[in-house]
Amino acid sequence: MEYKEFSVEDYKNILDLIGDNDRVLYGENISEDYSRDELGSVRVMPNVVVQALSAEEVSKVMKYAYNNNIPVTPRGSGTGLVGAAVPIKAGIVIDLSKMNKILELDEENLTLTVEPGVLLMEIGKYVEEFDLFYPPDPGEKTATIGGNISTNAGGMRAVKYGVTRDYVRGLEVVLPNGEIINIGGKVVKNSSGYALKDLIVGSEGTLGIVTKAVLRLLPLPKKAISLLIPFDTLDNAIETVPKIIKSKSIPTAIEFMQRAAIVAAEEFLKKPFPDNSSDAYLLLTFDGNSKEEIERTYEGVANICLESGALDVFISDTEERQEAIWSARGAFLEAIKALTTEMDEVDVVVPRNKVAEFVKFTHEVEESQDIRIKSFGHAGDGNLHIYILRDELNSEEWNNKLNNVMEILYKKSRELNGQVSGEHGIGFAKKPFLNESLPKESIEIMKGIKLAFDPKNILNPGKVCQ
Amino acid sequence: MEYKEFSVEDYKNILDLIGDNDRVLYGENISEDYSRDELGSVRVMPNVVVQALSAEEVSKVMKYAYNNNIPVTPRGSGTGLVGAAVPIKAGIVIDLSKMNKILELDEENLTLTVEPGVLLMEIGKYVEEFDLFYPPDPGEKTATIGGNISTNAGGMRAVKYGVTRDYVRGLEVVLPNGEIINIGGKVVKNSSGYALKDLIVGSEGTLGIVTKAVLRLLPLPKKAISLLIPFDTLDNAIETVPKIIKSKSIPTAIEFMQRAAIVAAEEFLKKPFPDNSSDAYLLLTFDGNSKEEIERTYEGVANICLESGALDVFISDTEERQEAIWSARGAFLEAIKALTTEMDEVDVVVPRNKVAEFVKFTHEVEESQDIRIKSFGHAGDGNLHIYILRDELNSEEWNNKLNNVMEILYKKSRELNGQVSGEHGIGFAKKPFLNESLPKESIEIMKGIKLAFDPKNILNPGKVCQ
Repeated sequence: MEYKEFSVEDYKNILDLIGDNDRVLYGENISEDYSRDELGSVRVMPNVVVQALSAEEVSKVMKYAYNNNIPVTPRGSGTGLVGAAVPIKAGIVIDLSKMNKILELDEENLTLTVEPGVLLMEIGKYVEEFDLFYPPDPGEKTATIGGNISTNAGGMRAVKYGVTRDYVRGLEVVLPNGEIINIGGKVVKNSSGYALKDLIVGSEGTLGIVTKAVLRLLPLPKKAISLLIPFDTLDNAIETVPKIIKSKSIPTAIEFMQRAAIVAAEEFLKKPFPDNSSDAYLLLTFDGNSKEEIERTYEGVANICLESGALDVFISDTEERQEAIWSARGAFLEAIKALTTEMDEVDVVVPRNKVAEFVKFTHEVEESQDIRIKSFGHAGDGNLHIYILRDELNSEEWNNKLNNVMEILYKKSRELNGQVSGEHGIGFAKKPFLNESLPKESIEIMKGIKLAFDPKNILNPGKVCQ
Repeated sequence: MEYKEFSVEDYKNILDLIGDNDRVLYGENISEDYSRDELGSVRVMPNVVVQALSAEEVSKVMKYAYNNNIPVTPRGSGTGLVGAAVPIKAGIVIDLSKMNKILELDEENLTLTVEPGVLLMEIGKYVEEFDLFYPPDPGEKTATIGGNISTNAGGMRAVKYGVTRDYVRGLEVVLPNGEIINIGGKVVKNSSGYALKDLIVGSEGTLGIVTKAVLRLLPLPKKAISLLIPFDTLDNAIETVPKIIKSKSIPTAIEFMQRAAIVAAEEFLKKPFPDNSSDAYLLLTFDGNSKEEIERTYEGVANICLESGALDVFISDTEERQEAIWSARGAFLEAIKALTTEMDEVDVVVPRNKVAEFVKFTHEVEESQDIRIKSFGHAGDGNLHIYILRDELNSEEWNNKLNNVMEILYKKSRELNGQVSGEHGIGFAKKPFLNESLPKESIEIMKGIKLAFDPKNILNPGKVCQ
């Protein structure tokens, strides 16, 4: 389908719809930030940016785009890693970051209703004041909740608590034709037709624009304790994880990390990590309502680790010590980025008992392909974040090598019954790998679903399955 | 779309595909059971029934049906309540109840792989031997897991543990064109394209036929305690529930029940209930890994109940006593059915703090419409099971009154921001109410999704959104 060539008339019409010069950016007034997301390897400038303040504004712009056949790309705070918020067909970017109000805390239904531009870190902070808890905990705390919903972000606590989709009860969505619909609500169960709510979650802004979300909260666990456990080799560390799972304790989080990432984070944050003398670490958290209950759980796990070759078990039971460890963990991405000129990432998820095999394989690839690869990730849920570093390669060498390494890694993931993305999504950058990974029937069905929502293919075109 | 008129040739061709006379039923050999589900108000005989033993057999039959334009309706053990398994366009019924093998318990990934015909009660029993736990707990334990997946069944423990969708990690599905695809797998997170797994769950056999499921397990809680709490009025009982939720304790289950249902269950089971002297009861369960931990949780809740007018708190901490109470709860549907000549049900879900208002409203409707209405249900998750009893009404009176009462009840549910079905689904019987309840855009999108999976509309036609 051909899109309309965007004209200054379109800009004026959109400006008329919004009626606020400051929130409709055109031409030179558009910051280069709007052309890219966090990784930056795909860049296209939009023709116009609308900083929306309400679902009604989103609806108006969407209707205009629909009637005039202009592509629209929704955007949160641009922390994505796969180009999902990049307007690859130009046209309109709707920036939702100013729709950032927390609308309602309902303590009787344990729900929080928010606008899409609220930042993840604000949600956590807000509900904790009421002794409540929003469990999803992706590393990137400056992401918007709308972005988290769009990628079905997972994060550290997925081992015990699941992912974003599990905490979305209801959505207000502007459809590609501009109509505003509500899906789900405050209800706990829902078997009323196809699972549109679950489908919108993780659809990366291609099926509708989320303008409001009803989130499910839990009571805040009264206490959390983290264990930092050094091992002499990464293999020993990761191979311990299936034993922990099998032991029937449920840690909140199980992360693995290597010395290189820790040292990079120390330098990046200018803060020492509690220990960096070992090659590899598991970092576990346990939460619960009493110290005794948590101790009972973690003691068994500590013993399993020691029996499997752990060199020590460092227990962090104060908020400060835990903050020191977890802020380092949260800085890994930025710290690794600072080590090199450019990088790209692989966010595969494999069954939990295949993590060790996959990480070992990345080390083989690092050698055979002569390129630096750094990884860390969620050992407890099988989701790995693997970074391929450009270093001093020229553009052609880098593109060739990167593509080759990715092909090799995704192939391995398929062999282990893994999936292309655990939580970062497909966006633009991972489309070829999704295509190779799924049966062609699944891709065709996804295209059909896209068509059901967006017959003119104007909402975030060229993403996910097209 | 016109379907092919089913002929004896079609029967012979299907028999050739399966090659087993005993599992391809035709004409007089088809039991009347295949024309109906548990409620029985919609009945249509199929032309042929295939009792499949494998995904390959399902695929062969589906391909034949696809090429010859014959409708196919999948069926588990027929315990549904909305006609989803009734072959309303006749044609082929594929009975999956003989695909009843538990295929693999994976203790490292905490998954159980099953065929769709495995009964819910078998899953619970099987995994408990390994100290593992499959949390979804619908009342109907003779339902197949395939049926539970098709309706996204919820059950008693949804308050703490969520619903069936939350425990399905992967599916093998035969598509309407007969192709077999795998969706998801043993992975814990997945953001690889649209959420086809979540969409198939709850689609009531209209998008594909589930031939294998990878279920997520949890460690079995070591201990459970139930509290049976009598109140002098149902209002007092139900109005306590939001206070319990707000108190930040998380019971596993919160059910409400009235004396009438208890007495009916006592008669039906020929077993006395621990107490039937009060008008209304809350039944709560708490689980955890130690008696102390559970006691700490339930003591607070018991106090809230007593402050809100509870007459007593009966604690059941032995398996026998809990079994006695919960088996009565499990028999409510059958027991109410035995009270009357025929009945139909409403399975609305409302926000948890609206349950009391809705139940009060059913009492008003009972009076104003001069018809007996019995209800019980999941007070903790807002999902009510409301039964409208025919008693001595003639067919015309019954149909008119039933339809009128349903209209009134679903209208009230919409006013309270509820949904048509919490867990029983839409099937055939609830289509008009889904249509009234959802925005027309949502229904159109659902039709488009159906088309993406089933362009010839041969799989379970006339259900959910069509």
